[in-house]
Amino acid sequence: MPHPDFPAQALALVRSRSPLIHCITNYVTANDCANLLLACGASPIMADEVEEVREITALSQALVLNLGTLNRRTIPAMLLAGKTANELGRPVVLDPVGAGASQLRTDTARTLLEQIRFSVIRGNSSEIKALAAGAGSTRGVDAALADAVTEETLDRAVAFVRDFSRRTGAVITLTGAIDLVSDAATTYCIQNGHPMMGSVTGTGCQLTALTAAFVAAQPKQPLTATAAAVMTMGLAGELAHRRLSPWEGNAAYRRAIIDAIYRMDSETLKAGARYEVQ
Amino acid sequence: MPHPDFPAQALALVRSRSPLIHCITNYVTANDCANLLLACGASPIMADEVEEVREITALSQALVLNLGTLNRRTIPAMLLAGKTANELGRPVVLDPVGAGASQLRTDTARTLLEQIRFSVIRGNSSEIKALAAGAGSTRGVDAALADAVTEETLDRAVAFVRDFSRRTGAVITLTGAIDLVSDAATTYCIQNGHPMMGSVTGTGCQLTALTAAFVAAQPKQPLTATAAAVMTMGLAGELAHRRLSPWEGNAAYRRAIIDAIYRMDSETLKAGARYEVQ
Amino acid sequence: MPHPDFPAQALALVRSRSPLIHCITNYVTANDCANLLLACGASPIMADEVEEVREITALSQALVLNLGTLNRRTIPAMLLAGKTANELGRPVVLDPVGAGASQLRTDTARTLLEQIRFSVIRGNSSEIKALAAGAGSTRGVDAALADAVTEETLDRAVAFVRDFSRRTGAVITLTGAIDLVSDAATTYCIQNGHPMMGSVTGTGCQLTALTAAFVAAQPKQPLTATAAAVMTMGLAGELAHRRLSPWEGNAAYRRAIIDAIYRMDSETLKAGARYEVQ
Repeated sequence: MPHPDFPAQALALVRSRSPLIHCITNYVTANDCANLLLACGASPIMADEVEEVREITALSQALVLNLGTLNRRTIPAMLLAGKTANELGRPVVLDPVGAGASQLRTDTARTLLEQIRFSVIRGNSSEIKALAAGAGSTRGVDAALADAVTEETLDRAVAFVRDFSRRTGAVITLTGAIDLVSDAATTYCIQNGHPMMGSVTGTGCQLTALTAAFVAAQPKQPLTATAAAVMTMGLAGELAHRRLSPWEGNAAYRRAIIDAIYRMDSETLKAGARYEVQ
Repeated sequence: MPHPDFPAQALALVRSRSPLIHCITNYVTANDCANLLLACGASPIMADEVEEVREITALSQALVLNLGTLNRRTIPAMLLAGKTANELGRPVVLDPVGAGASQLRTDTARTLLEQIRFSVIRGNSSEIKALAAGAGSTRGVDAALADAVTEETLDRAVAFVRDFSRRTGAVITLTGAIDLVSDAATTYCIQNGHPMMGSVTGTGCQLTALTAAFVAAQPKQPLTATAAAVMTMGLAGELAHRRLSPWEGNAAYRRAIIDAIYRMDSETLKAGARYEVQ
Repeated sequence: MPHPDFPAQALALVRSRSPLIHCITNYVTANDCANLLLACGASPIMADEVEEVREITALSQALVLNLGTLNRRTIPAMLLAGKTANELGRPVVLDPVGAGASQLRTDTARTLLEQIRFSVIRGNSSEIKALAAGAGSTRGVDAALADAVTEETLDRAVAFVRDFSRRTGAVITLTGAIDLVSDAATTYCIQNGHPMMGSVTGTGCQLTALTAAFVAAQPKQPLTATAAAVMTMGLAGELAHRRLSPWEGNAAYRRAIIDAIYRMDSETLKAGARYEVQ
């Protein structure tokens, strides 16, 4: 079992090591991912041209591959950056946005999975299922509610993510009402977060970027680093929600979540992290 | 004549049906469009790769084609997505951003108009004129002030949009000091909105996305659904303006408009909608 | 020596002339650049397709070339737009984001420098050095701290930017703890700004866009127009920082900086500009 302070320690390591994170990501949420990375103490570099990704990946401490707004031009860049990161021993985090929603996204996600070793894969139920099984229908980037992990479906979901982690060698983050972070042996069931986070575009993408920063700061502890990132993001969502005025909505919330990451301190994280280990 | 509560009813339908809106749109305002769609109760999916747009359009309840940051790569995706939506009977909304500013944008807008049946076309005077007539000079994405619809030029403008609606079969939204929403028979002259909305990039793009959500929720009532969207956006602009502190500017306003959509309720919409029907 | 009110006069000219600024820029910060331009009284048009850039540049009063998220598709558009602006006598501003971080960015920046006459080049130490010398290692988009201009290294830096201005014919803006704005004869050493601006992605891109607006409004005074833009941006960063609540972070700060530009007045700018001329 990790020390109970591990989430706060993980965040402190991000801030002291200030890792540079190379993101090949979508244009919808790239700005939020960049500001989220800066908020947690990391630095972003967005670069998706195949000619330069080897150099950019080599400069960076981790790589994010995010399939939102996937297009043919950047797939070779993703493959090359991923292989470069593997060669150099840098963590790679996959966000298979919309896997299951189109053949291109499902196929690309699987190709990446075949050719690149990922440290972490983060998605909602539909995306992870599509990736795992070749089945599953994804309603865009939203998790089908029936598919989200709840108390009732927890045991099945834990078995599923462990199996998928065993097959891929990656830590699996399955986000939903309860977030699961799992390797083949251990699963963190995390209850942080707020339902309104689903009303802000890209909170998933942001969590993926945050995960990369945490894993970059502790590359030998991908499971606890990822769990700490998920707790930090979820807790930021809770704190930010309390800050909203009655007339503020999802745009104010978007800002407040990033601000809560910027202001997150050890005490808050210690007091607020809610999880069980299985 | 529609029931006086039709704007509130239209918004309620968006929230209960929660349509998924496929957007092929520009990278400048994509994030705002996504958060605006979430604010009104719809869901966004941004996807512009030709290989996947048939599937994404088929998953969605409406399609937005927005020409901001137009490029050769996405034109075939726009055509294919538009044709797919037509085959499946899904509404398609066109935002001809910058038509008239370059031959590429004017030609692309016209090609789309020839090959796709649009439910709604939304633009400012310069853009709509360029699309309608092959003439007109557009000063970037800003409406030339002399071209905006005012009390003095209202009759001419109403005649113009009716004629253009007759020729295209689409509901026409012409935005300006007064917003016109028209089919061949009926025109809504809407006085909601605030001049400061012109100081926030992409309020036009956002209105187009909002229109798609409203029409997706009521595909058989495109005229009243579009009018309701225009009133909702304009009223959000008014409410948000009242929330600004003296030191806040266009960035705070940008957020407050989306927040006002998120918090919009039936009573506010009933009390605030200002329009005449011709 | 310019009149002590020159920063306020420069801003007043932007507001009265309302220049249209053509930006070929990255998708991470394009929205912020657009809203920043609107905040200062200018208008943005983002267009990066080679087929249309001649027309868009011709409509505009200045051009920004920003290498963030550089890709092969837009390099020919940058070259053609730059040459068009040169032919028409419109100012062109270069932001060599990440020059030194990859061969593609360094080479592209140099190619642009060979084929286009720039009115202003703005970058941090690593970027300007990479451009100037073909040497230098850039840690992504962050200035290596050791390279930033401080009191101790000021004299050397002033000599460096003057020499680079002499070689390029461009006003050089070197941003750091102290910002330098220099032509071959005169250097403004500007002390406005706040360290937290480094925690907001794209404040450099925004300053570049602001510079283009100021130079577009005073194309014959590129040195003082650029210095005024740097002071305005830095002062906005100071004012915005004072507005932050204890729980607000870099996302609130991002908004507050743009708002401070929107609300900037002559008296504040007169009282707040801090600089020496060498």
